Amino acid sequence: MKQSQLFTKTDKNFPKDETAINAKYLIKGGFVAKNSSGVFSFLPLGWRVLNKINNIIREEMNAIGGQEILMPSLVAKKYWEQSGRWDVDVMYKLANGKSQAANGAEEFGLGWTHEEVIADIAKSFIRSEKDLPLAVYQIQNKFRHELRARNGLIRAREFLMKDLYSFHASEEGLKNYYQTVIDAYRKILDRLGLSYKIVEAGGGDFTQEFTHEFQVLVSAGEDTVFYCESCNFARNKEIFNEKECPECGKELEESRGIEVANVFKLGKKFSPWWMGSYGIGSSRLMGTLVEVFHDNSGIIWPDAITPFKVHLLVLPGGKNADTIYNNLRRDGVEVLYDDRQEISAGEKFSDADLIGIPHRLVVSEKSGDQIEHKRRGLAETKLLSYDKLVQLLR
Amino acid sequence: MKQSQLFTKTDKNFPKDETAINAKYLIKGGFVAKNSSGVFSFLPLGWRVLNKINNIIREEMNAIGGQEILMPSLVAKKYWEQSGRWDVDVMYKLANGKSQAANGAEEFGLGWTHEEVIADIAKSFIRSEKDLPLAVYQIQNKFRHELRARNGLIRAREFLMKDLYSFHASEEGLKNYYQTVIDAYRKILDRLGLSYKIVEAGGGDFTQEFTHEFQVLVSAGEDTVFYCESCNFARNKEIFNEKECPECGKELEESRGIEVANVFKLGKKFSPWWMGSYGIGSSRLMGTLVEVFHDNSGIIWPDAITPFKVHLLVLPGGKNADTIYNNLRRDGVEVLYDDRQEISAGEKFSDADLIGIPHRLVVSEKSGDQIEHKRRGLAETKLLSYDKLVQLLR
Repeated sequence: MKQSQLFTKTDKNFPKDETAINAKYLIKGGFVAKNSSGVFSFLPLGWRVLNKINNIIREEMNAIGGQEILMPSLVAKKYWEQSGRWDVDVMYKLANGKSQAANGAEEFGLGWTHEEVIADIAKSFIRSEKDLPLAVYQIQNKFRHELRARNGLIRAREFLMKDLYSFHASEEGLKNYYQTVIDAYRKILDRLGLSYKIVEAGGGDFTQEFTHEFQVLVSAGEDTVFYCESCNFARNKEIFNEKECPECGKELEESRGIEVANVFKLGKKFSPWWMGSYGIGSSRLMGTLVEVFHDNSGIIWPDAITPFKVHLLVLPGGKNADTIYNNLRRDGVEVLYDDRQEISAGEKFSDADLIGIPHRLVVSEKSGDQIEHKRRGLAETKLLSYDKLVQLLR
Repeated sequence: MKQSQLFTKTDKNFPKDETAINAKYLIKGGFVAKNSSGVFSFLPLGWRVLNKINNIIREEMNAIGGQEILMPSLVAKKYWEQSGRWDVDVMYKLANGKSQAANGAEEFGLGWTHEEVIADIAKSFIRSEKDLPLAVYQIQNKFRHELRARNGLIRAREFLMKDLYSFHASEEGLKNYYQTVIDAYRKILDRLGLSYKIVEAGGGDFTQEFTHEFQVLVSAGEDTVFYCESCNFARNKEIFNEKECPECGKELEESRGIEVANVFKLGKKFSPWWMGSYGIGSSRLMGTLVEVFHDNSGIIWPDAITPFKVHLLVLPGGKNADTIYNNLRRDGVEVLYDDRQEISAGEKFSDADLIGIPHRLVVSEKSGDQIEHKRRGLAETKLLSYDKLVQLLR
């Protein structure tokens, strides 16, 4: 895409009312716009990143037999009443139904999770144990009535997440699939280049057992995690407060963490079958990636989810930039082409650093018939022929 | 996909409380589930159809320079107050904000359209006329507080639509792009195989000029359209009630129509620039397609948006069905494979008719080493070799 045609522009300044790094860089770079506290629009660059994250999630869900659907955001009171969750604080409720309930109109809450709805749908298709196991997921906007939205995409009121639900004939079947999902989540986070701890956490109303959270250890996190460097032990501070590892006796490390995914064994609370629920937050992952992958100049996107693979900058005296752009597209390379006139070389470089595409190419008087290549985040530049460049990008 | 693994099943009966053909067939076939009046889940087969419709729309929007984004469903009162639309009847409002507004919490309405939000976003990026024209779109769940939801996917409370907004430096620029979008919408509906009339309609508060609606003429429609068979004249009955064509004097035809798309010139109501707004309802299109393409046995999907291209049925004595299934997938053909045991041939045939995939393949004792091919909606069957079959499908 030609940058002259991209409707967003970088901002010279950071947004005034943001302290979170992810919000500051994503807004400054034109990836997202903030519409209200905790409410964002995903602009073209941000939408591309988010879709790449979603597609990685989708591939790994399909690989473990997940069938994709889309459930509604309008979830009627009848669903929440069955589970006793109509009056939870985190749910947004619609005003209209309430005033018209006397006329038989339904009251709705906005879906912040969908156990009740999927259990109802599944009921009509599971006729016997032979129809099990079953795994169904969706990637959908969720809504949470946070009194204090904060931390950019990490704690938003409206956010995109993938929620997977599984149904099993036996507790054993649920346990096995629970591990299968953990392995799939590992693959997703590995593909995104994120390090994480799998942390034991409380199950709330659902279960006496531990649930598990995938925590990315980074200072912007809102959770506190204790973990052991000698063994795999890791537990959320909410349910644990000791200095030493209960498994190997070593002193524990303590870190802030962002909970990017979680897995629950629900037992039979929502369904006559054994049920599991597994969430991974795709817009929260986007914010987390920025918290992990940035420097003082801007974002450094991992290759797997960068909005474009290469950022091609043409500077004064640069020859053949249009041809290089067209050839890269012909060769299947996603390229953002900074073809803007009247923008100084300095501005183009600082925009490229801010936007954070991993491969920067410069065509200038200096590069002659070659192309200057630089990896975002590294200092070294190299002059390459087009053919060598394409080899390097493969 | 193997049908034995598809979690939805067809229902023997039509849903009791539905009169609309689209709702009856889509629910019976397991494409959608109804969660509340006017609120649906899209199940795997339906989700596939909806995504194919969305991708056709996306391709044609990208072809006319549209840049894809995603705006939020939570649209704060501050936006609606600017345009005087906070108190429109069709908007769902959240209850939570209201009770906490005294503490500084924002009140939200659920987005049923996004002129206010996109105008605000565009304002921060359009720094001069040189940044114009600009076209931005999203494909998003929309919410409308319909007192009486009815007609299946045709009039839902929550539905998927594509909304495009354009900004121009001159009225002339807007007029030209308006025509460009009309041409793009023609292409979308042509690719879906739908016939339609482009109908003049009133502009409501927005404009003194006509707006234009794309009406698919079918008895399930909720609008009434007058149109001329001799010239292109067509107008919505809401703003016209004459017997004869005002352009050529011929007697007019009258028909019910489903409004699947509309285009508005908004002038400068929402922005200092000339603005247009263009909507096309993707879930409504899905319902409309069923209203148009069905017979007494079920749906007849057009090739462009069928959930799978071929439906392969294996009957007793059928040889090599697994091999044919694997070869079709190897050759890039999307195939639903009815490999179910304990299901009679009659049930498999009637499920295939109901689900409505355009190419039905049967492997049975009778077909021997060949494959029986039948087009959904036609009576003729043909025995073909695998190679001939693949030729026919290309």
